[in-house]
Amino acid sequence: MIAPAESGAAPEIAPAAPPAVSPLAVSLGDPAGIGPEVIAKAWAVRSAHRLPPFFGIGDRRSLEAVWDGPIIPIAHPADAMAEFERGLPLLQVDDPGEIEPGNPNLAGARCALDSLEMAVGLARSGAVSGLVTGPVAKAQLYAIGFAHPGQTEFVAERCGVAAENVAMMMVGPDLRTIPVTIHRPLASVPDVLTAELIISRARTVARGLIRDFGIAKPRLAVAGLNPHAGEGGTMGREEIDIILPAIAQLREEGLEVSGPWSPDTMFHAAARADYDAAICMYHDQALIPLKTLYFDSGVNMTLGLPLLRTSPDHGTAFGIAGKGAANPRAMIAAIALAGQCARARQLEGAA
Amino acid sequence: MIAPAESGAAPEIAPAAPPAVSPLAVSLGDPAGIGPEVIAKAWAVRSAHRLPPFFGIGDRRSLEAVWDGPIIPIAHPADAMAEFERGLPLLQVDDPGEIEPGNPNLAGARCALDSLEMAVGLARSGAVSGLVTGPVAKAQLYAIGFAHPGQTEFVAERCGVAAENVAMMMVGPDLRTIPVTIHRPLASVPDVLTAELIISRARTVARGLIRDFGIAKPRLAVAGLNPHAGEGGTMGREEIDIILPAIAQLREEGLEVSGPWSPDTMFHAAARADYDAAICMYHDQALIPLKTLYFDSGVNMTLGLPLLRTSPDHGTAFGIAGKGAANPRAMIAAIALAGQCARARQLEGAA
Repeated sequence: MIAPAESGAAPEIAPAAPPAVSPLAVSLGDPAGIGPEVIAKAWAVRSAHRLPPFFGIGDRRSLEAVWDGPIIPIAHPADAMAEFERGLPLLQVDDPGEIEPGNPNLAGARCALDSLEMAVGLARSGAVSGLVTGPVAKAQLYAIGFAHPGQTEFVAERCGVAAENVAMMMVGPDLRTIPVTIHRPLASVPDVLTAELIISRARTVARGLIRDFGIAKPRLAVAGLNPHAGEGGTMGREEIDIILPAIAQLREEGLEVSGPWSPDTMFHAAARADYDAAICMYHDQALIPLKTLYFDSGVNMTLGLPLLRTSPDHGTAFGIAGKGAANPRAMIAAIALAGQCARARQLEGAA
Repeated sequence: MIAPAESGAAPEIAPAAPPAVSPLAVSLGDPAGIGPEVIAKAWAVRSAHRLPPFFGIGDRRSLEAVWDGPIIPIAHPADAMAEFERGLPLLQVDDPGEIEPGNPNLAGARCALDSLEMAVGLARSGAVSGLVTGPVAKAQLYAIGFAHPGQTEFVAERCGVAAENVAMMMVGPDLRTIPVTIHRPLASVPDVLTAELIISRARTVARGLIRDFGIAKPRLAVAGLNPHAGEGGTMGREEIDIILPAIAQLREEGLEVSGPWSPDTMFHAAARADYDAAICMYHDQALIPLKTLYFDSGVNMTLGLPLLRTSPDHGTAFGIAGKGAANPRAMIAAIALAGQCARARQLEGAA
């Protein structure tokens, strides 16, 4: 594999005047999963969806196994800008050996990890304007020594940011949700929920909405934890003891924050129009509304990093890999969102 | 108020041959809430929505305060069948005194409770084919000595059914969800969740779907409690220790039961097509998807009672009462659903 771009990379990039931003890097994810297929399908509809220039990082054969469109090997991210209309630009990583869609193996996991590592390095160096990560198989990654809960924590570590300082934001066409607590048993949520944690996440989200979405004064809606947001303390006291103090502190800092809202009545269409992001107390409180509405097109975005990172909100789907049946909507949405946010950052940088 | 119909009532009802079922009783709820308004609005669109004959139970002035349409006093439920096209038939209860929409008082709460009591009595006697309950104000009811958590528990008690044996089912156009645990702090859900409770609720739901919806072989989807349904025990063990054994037992009884499903991926349109009802572990797991999709038109149905009971899934909304702004969609849906279920019961009874 080539080393992550360091000095020398940036000067080769096209001049930074809009709209000639640098391309997005898209790691293919596990070569036996649906990542290569949905990325190729996204490239195929690049014009209809006005996708920004991007290139894949991974193994060529994982694309060829599922797609007979044009693949253009590139040696450097900047090359993707010129080649993007002609074919899917690809930065090749180390050879994972035989690829059989639907049947993951350790060499494929190694390839997925190398692709991710290279993509992060390019994003950190400024050679790409953002990073879109294809789906990986955690079980396979663990088997080759990967020690992070997921790609998000890996990217955070490589950026020198503590995992607790990043926020996972789920993005749909008219809904953004952030789980304050994420992958933990539901029973432990009340134990770890603190005002400090809510405040930290909300600050990260507010900064992200300003920087990456160009929202000057983000409106945050904070969910309650309990049914009916505790109904005045009669169905749980976390709203009174934890969430309200967090909201008070955030308001004191000048943020526009409402809540705590009854969790069941804050996600319908009229309610969604009243805020820019919903701060949710646990995984499914954030994920159920998003995936109920936008199952095929949800994007997972990591806020709080120096670099832009989005990801389609689905897994490797080994069961359907190689059958041509994978739905590319979430990958298309992830690429489109990364492009929009890159432009917002560019505008902010130019302002 | 008149006493609940007892012997002597049934003979006056029209013969039971379809489609001449007996009417539905609709309790107006708190006279100062939006109940009277949405019931009057539902009557006004009875033809467009093909609503079954129904009559209101409550105080005439609560209707007159918000509506200038025709009200037809009736002395017996059977009279509603003949009068329904001409005006909104009304069974008057005791006089609550002055009514001021938006300003509830104790006399109004007493009127609401008397209306409910009468409606239950009529439903138990068979004089009506089902019961739709308008919204009441719990705080006011508690002040006059009401000792039940809500109308559901009151109705259950009057039917001689233990509250733990009824199931609350939320109904939208293509989604039915049942919270196994309901109005309790989220932190206490794992403590009270048992296989027995899930089994009991699922049995009640299966019987209800057969009897009231005419679904011969109901398909029940059981949600997990934890993110990703616990992911094999790495994020909580309730799926392994409690939910899977419950599913196994239900299958042994011949029911078609799937799960435990990852809670965030079981409510999108394609997933919803695969089951007739979702058995959910806690309030917001059931209510978030339903209200996210169908905020204005959700119906709350009580299963496990000898009588049919539906209710619009909203409160008294005192803040907008008397302004003509109340949305009647949920009340229309509640009346329509009660009518459909009454016909299903009638057909089953005739078979």
